[in-house]
Amino acid sequence: MTTPDLAVIGGGQLARMMQPPAIALGLRIRLLAEGPDVSAAQVIPDHVVGDHTVLADLRAVVADAPVVTFDHEHVPPEHLRTLDAEGHACRPGPHALLYAQDKAAMRSRLTELGVPCPRHAPIATPADLEEFGYPAVLKTTRGGYDGKGVWVVRSASDADEAFAADRPLLAEELVDFRRELSALVARNPSGEVRSYAVVESRQVDGVCAEVVAPAPDLDPSLAAEARSLAERIATELDVTGILAVELFETADGRLLVNELAMRPHNTGHWSIDGAETSQFENHLRSVLDLPLGCTHARAPWTVMVNVLGGRVTDLEAQRTVVLAAEPDVKVHLYGKSVKAGRKVGHVTAFGDDLDDVLARARHAAELFTTG
Amino acid sequence: MTTPDLAVIGGGQLARMMQPPAIALGLRIRLLAEGPDVSAAQVIPDHVVGDHTVLADLRAVVADAPVVTFDHEHVPPEHLRTLDAEGHACRPGPHALLYAQDKAAMRSRLTELGVPCPRHAPIATPADLEEFGYPAVLKTTRGGYDGKGVWVVRSASDADEAFAADRPLLAEELVDFRRELSALVARNPSGEVRSYAVVESRQVDGVCAEVVAPAPDLDPSLAAEARSLAERIATELDVTGILAVELFETADGRLLVNELAMRPHNTGHWSIDGAETSQFENHLRSVLDLPLGCTHARAPWTVMVNVLGGRVTDLEAQRTVVLAAEPDVKVHLYGKSVKAGRKVGHVTAFGDDLDDVLARARHAAELFTTG
Repeated sequence: MTTPDLAVIGGGQLARMMQPPAIALGLRIRLLAEGPDVSAAQVIPDHVVGDHTVLADLRAVVADAPVVTFDHEHVPPEHLRTLDAEGHACRPGPHALLYAQDKAAMRSRLTELGVPCPRHAPIATPADLEEFGYPAVLKTTRGGYDGKGVWVVRSASDADEAFAADRPLLAEELVDFRRELSALVARNPSGEVRSYAVVESRQVDGVCAEVVAPAPDLDPSLAAEARSLAERIATELDVTGILAVELFETADGRLLVNELAMRPHNTGHWSIDGAETSQFENHLRSVLDLPLGCTHARAPWTVMVNVLGGRVTDLEAQRTVVLAAEPDVKVHLYGKSVKAGRKVGHVTAFGDDLDDVLARARHAAELFTTG
Repeated sequence: MTTPDLAVIGGGQLARMMQPPAIALGLRIRLLAEGPDVSAAQVIPDHVVGDHTVLADLRAVVADAPVVTFDHEHVPPEHLRTLDAEGHACRPGPHALLYAQDKAAMRSRLTELGVPCPRHAPIATPADLEEFGYPAVLKTTRGGYDGKGVWVVRSASDADEAFAADRPLLAEELVDFRRELSALVARNPSGEVRSYAVVESRQVDGVCAEVVAPAPDLDPSLAAEARSLAERIATELDVTGILAVELFETADGRLLVNELAMRPHNTGHWSIDGAETSQFENHLRSVLDLPLGCTHARAPWTVMVNVLGGRVTDLEAQRTVVLAAEPDVKVHLYGKSVKAGRKVGHVTAFGDDLDDVLARARHAAELFTTG
């Protein structure tokens, strides 16, 4: 194999969706995959099977790769620092990624920067939680995602499971929010920053269900504030690649930062079919310090609906049914076997009429899920 | 490797550009590649190195693939018939592909169908050519492409090289044309047909240099005629996959069919960034008998300019220069080494103002060629 332009750690759907823009740009990816036929390994020829928590496996993959980026945020920080010291540019770097890996560190840093956050406090004991007060959201500071490692607690007994996990916890106020928004930016090491339209993200059971771009009826001043917050966070934390800032729009019309992710994000999948440059292309351009592409939307409305594993088990056979019913919806399957609730694909529709676009995308996703 | 959904014969840029929509749709391609690192082999994990003129190599690749399609039209017809008889659906089939492989057969069949063609005649001897008259265009009936195997003859001596090749020849009138157009359609075995906007194709030395979609100032009735001609040819010849019909718009405002191609075509590359469903996605959907996607343009104007090998030898290094100068142009590199005049990539720009779109695409292509 020829020398890769970059190494990607993790073989999930995010790495898979980096491959189409890599093909267009003529970039060669070397992948560290969890298994020989995981989602991204199916489509990236130059892949090595290994474990992202094992330094030797990481070293084998990045050997002749000048740049390293990630499908997820689970590589141990000490390994990132070692790779960095050995001359492989980790993008984002460990100093930035820390704030996506550790929610307590993220909250302290954002508060220091004056970024609006929910009220929060580190929790070591039940007494700390009593002092913080109820209702509260308890989170493990590390390792949670898609609603895992998160508990809404309204009394001491609700917190038993959280304390039983015996991991560092953070309490946050239970925000009275109107909806969830997401602000995505790409930033390269030269400092160029481009932000996407702020989107509305609709969650079911803590998992992103659908995304509407742009967020309907969003006050233009709030949209501008969200974009500028995301741009400022990317710059202040020295993020390289895509940064997703998940936000609450509160019932009283303020923005509060919920979570940060430093990689292409589910709330940015709409951009593959909906923006001039997708988040995956701009992620690659960012981490390779290439000039960034235009983030403008290509249609008045773009809607992305996740395909979660459901009653339909043969997605490939169902693809024909979906394309017959909704031929103009864009289908994205991740090459994963179906398990209940697992993200196995997404669909995107775009057009001038939001109701029509929503209906088509939801119909296609429903056909993939319940048939 | 898992069972492929289809086999693709030939590892050039057309096969390479099938991979991004295959990734999205969750389709697995098995590739017959001319070498281990040819354009498409770089991006399709499941590839076999072999020769498309050797039946054993073809059989090895298509073994467990229900459908076979092509990067080029050079597979011997007898091999296609064998594969077909052995239960592998060749799409397009040998009965259709014949008309893209043999220009004499194409001219007879189209004339039979009443499709307007340049005046033409088979040429066996110099006397036949004298009878046909000058000026004429002499073509080998098989194997020509990108201006190869084509001679403009104004007198007997101009034809020496053509006769020396000792291959079946066809003479055609030298058409007085205003410009060249191209009409692209996708057709699946169920008979569904979708056509793209008619484009203008600008050639330099017999090679496509740039494509403007849609063709500027094209009379709407000529545009409709071109689309309906292409749809009719696809149906009458039972083409499956993409059919490109290259046309002359004559000085006196008529359409004449120049060439047919039965695969994704250079004049359709604009559709990757410019249409709701690219020609590559619709080719895959066609050959797998999936319902077809919307062919509408996503911007008022889309311009594709080829990157031909020139003074710039390191395209990867030059990519940074191009993206800095024209960040909003879409770059497509084919992973090929640079040779003078070789198609090594293309760039696409889109927008509301044709002059601006043309200028940006040409500038990017020029930076990739002459620096």
